[in-house]
Amino acid sequence: MAQRHLDPKDPTAEVATGNALAGYLRTHATEFLRALRLHRETGGATGTGPESVDAARALRRSARRISGSLHTYRPLLDAAWSESMRPELAWLSGTLALEHAYEARLERLLQALHRLSGAAVIPEQATVPGGPAPSPPGRGNLTVGAAKAGALLERQLTLARTRAHSTALQALGSSRFHAVADKVALLASEVPLTPTAPTTDLRPLAGAARERLTDAVTALPLVTAGHPYNAQALVHGLSPDPAPHPQDGSWHQVRLLLRLHRYACEVLGADAAADTRVLTAGQCLDRHRDASEAAAAAAQAARTPRIAPATAYALGVLHADQRHEVEAARFAFQRAWQRDPVETV
Amino acid sequence: MAQRHLDPKDPTAEVATGNALAGYLRTHATEFLRALRLHRETGGATGTGPESVDAARALRRSARRISGSLHTYRPLLDAAWSESMRPELAWLSGTLALEHAYEARLERLLQALHRLSGAAVIPEQATVPGGPAPSPPGRGNLTVGAAKAGALLERQLTLARTRAHSTALQALGSSRFHAVADKVALLASEVPLTPTAPTTDLRPLAGAARERLTDAVTALPLVTAGHPYNAQALVHGLSPDPAPHPQDGSWHQVRLLLRLHRYACEVLGADAAADTRVLTAGQCLDRHRDASEAAAAAAQAARTPRIAPATAYALGVLHADQRHEVEAARFAFQRAWQRDPVETV
Repeated sequence: MAQRHLDPKDPTAEVATGNALAGYLRTHATEFLRALRLHRETGGATGTGPESVDAARALRRSARRISGSLHTYRPLLDAAWSESMRPELAWLSGTLALEHAYEARLERLLQALHRLSGAAVIPEQATVPGGPAPSPPGRGNLTVGAAKAGALLERQLTLARTRAHSTALQALGSSRFHAVADKVALLASEVPLTPTAPTTDLRPLAGAARERLTDAVTALPLVTAGHPYNAQALVHGLSPDPAPHPQDGSWHQVRLLLRLHRYACEVLGADAAADTRVLTAGQCLDRHRDASEAAAAAAQAARTPRIAPATAYALGVLHADQRHEVEAARFAFQRAWQRDPVETV
Repeated sequence: MAQRHLDPKDPTAEVATGNALAGYLRTHATEFLRALRLHRETGGATGTGPESVDAARALRRSARRISGSLHTYRPLLDAAWSESMRPELAWLSGTLALEHAYEARLERLLQALHRLSGAAVIPEQATVPGGPAPSPPGRGNLTVGAAKAGALLERQLTLARTRAHSTALQALGSSRFHAVADKVALLASEVPLTPTAPTTDLRPLAGAARERLTDAVTALPLVTAGHPYNAQALVHGLSPDPAPHPQDGSWHQVRLLLRLHRYACEVLGADAAADTRVLTAGQCLDRHRDASEAAAAAAQAARTPRIAPATAYALGVLHADQRHEVEAARFAFQRAWQRDPVETV
């Protein structure tokens, strides 16, 4: 879809109405179907190659956009249809996201272990004929504790990832998925707008999405986050409460609202991601979420029975390191956000 | 000694010469002897009360100032005398400092454990008659790991402190100490200046001390330190090298040079600590040193044989937390220092 960079303040600009919403939904329904076809062609039930991964990512991307628009522009759409569609799309994109999340989490944690060991992350080595055998990638220069912690995380997260892969494949073969795919196929040709929707101005609903975002940001502890080294992210580092940290919830929520804001702008024909501020803020919140979940994985691994004290110590350092990353991400978000207020819609 | 706030740029100001140095040394030799008398009166060989602690601190304070001035203004003093005196004063103040250092380190680590457990540090509770027995101070709301880590650190650092106390008492009763005390008593009445010293301008030597400081600061990685969350302090958090971190050395060196600069200014009659920038920078470097040593103590405790994994995990989190404090102290130093260049001398 061509992006029309509308200026919402320009009274002569074309006003986006429900028809634009219908166009946006049709476009992403078509994208969804194309990704699904690609996924089936590139491996389907057993696919793990890069093309299959791209196809799964494209499926998730479309599912999130359709689902987000259904939420933001709900009053313009058939209510029963919309309410039955959203949870199914959320289930699908959630299921498809897990495998990649576990893979990225393991990579993040192994890189952190190397950084904490004062070792550069070892690149894939070319074998020199007759030379010494290359050291296994990613294991050079680690202490016993760090190496054991890395091996434990690799075992646990690889298992989780394998399970997530099977679950995703089962999901894609399920009748539940086929029902979603049928609905999306229908959406690609016909969008169930309400009778008045085609001429209804979309901006008030997009504005409401923006307002939900700014309200949620206002409720964040941004003053604290703006003071470097405030040590807040690790306050519950040894708390008896289980991970994830309750303090992270409001930040995760802002991440979702920022995404809804971006999709709402896309429907209007504006690309909110072209606003570097929104883009940077979103990247900070992704990093916040990733570090938060990596810290929780390290804490979780430390609860494995019968691990060596050196392993547990390394996992403790790793947990704290990732909680620092959480704090750093909040600081960076605060910096990006305070630059100037959201005026995109 | 009354502080004369001389402006070194004011050509009409009185120029401090070797006579001012002699006055400064006599003053601090007298302070040393007074603190020694107080120490003997308030417990001497068995003293641990607050007055005895104050006396030991006053002894260290004078010893450091005499030793520092001997160093900065060495060319104005009898060389053989000066070179025999300095190591003895360094030995004395080092020996006297250890007990307090272990005590402060334990307090810092226990407070951090409470902070990391999400629990406020528990104040001493008043016992309510008939009410529940108060929980032991400093142990509320800790996880098993945090409580065990706290108990382990308490055991190890209390033992170290007790040993340091005995060593300090032995030192104060030794013939080596009596020889130092005799020399200081002599210094209180007669300072062995070189023949030309009484009329020699002190400012070039004070300027050289300042230059050694600014050179050492210039060599610090201040650009990195000025970027919050640069994650440099924990780079060797899991390194096979033993603590303390080699990267801390240059910062510890600047801490000592900043102190020498302060004392050099005091001799000139200027109070460098009245310059909030020097004062703040010094506090940042004290915090840097304390956090660095606390982190090393946590790492050391984690090497205790046969500790539980939960204890080791808590010590890992604690180590990383204190390394984070190290990084925060560097950031704060950079902020304090960049405000404007040193112009005190």
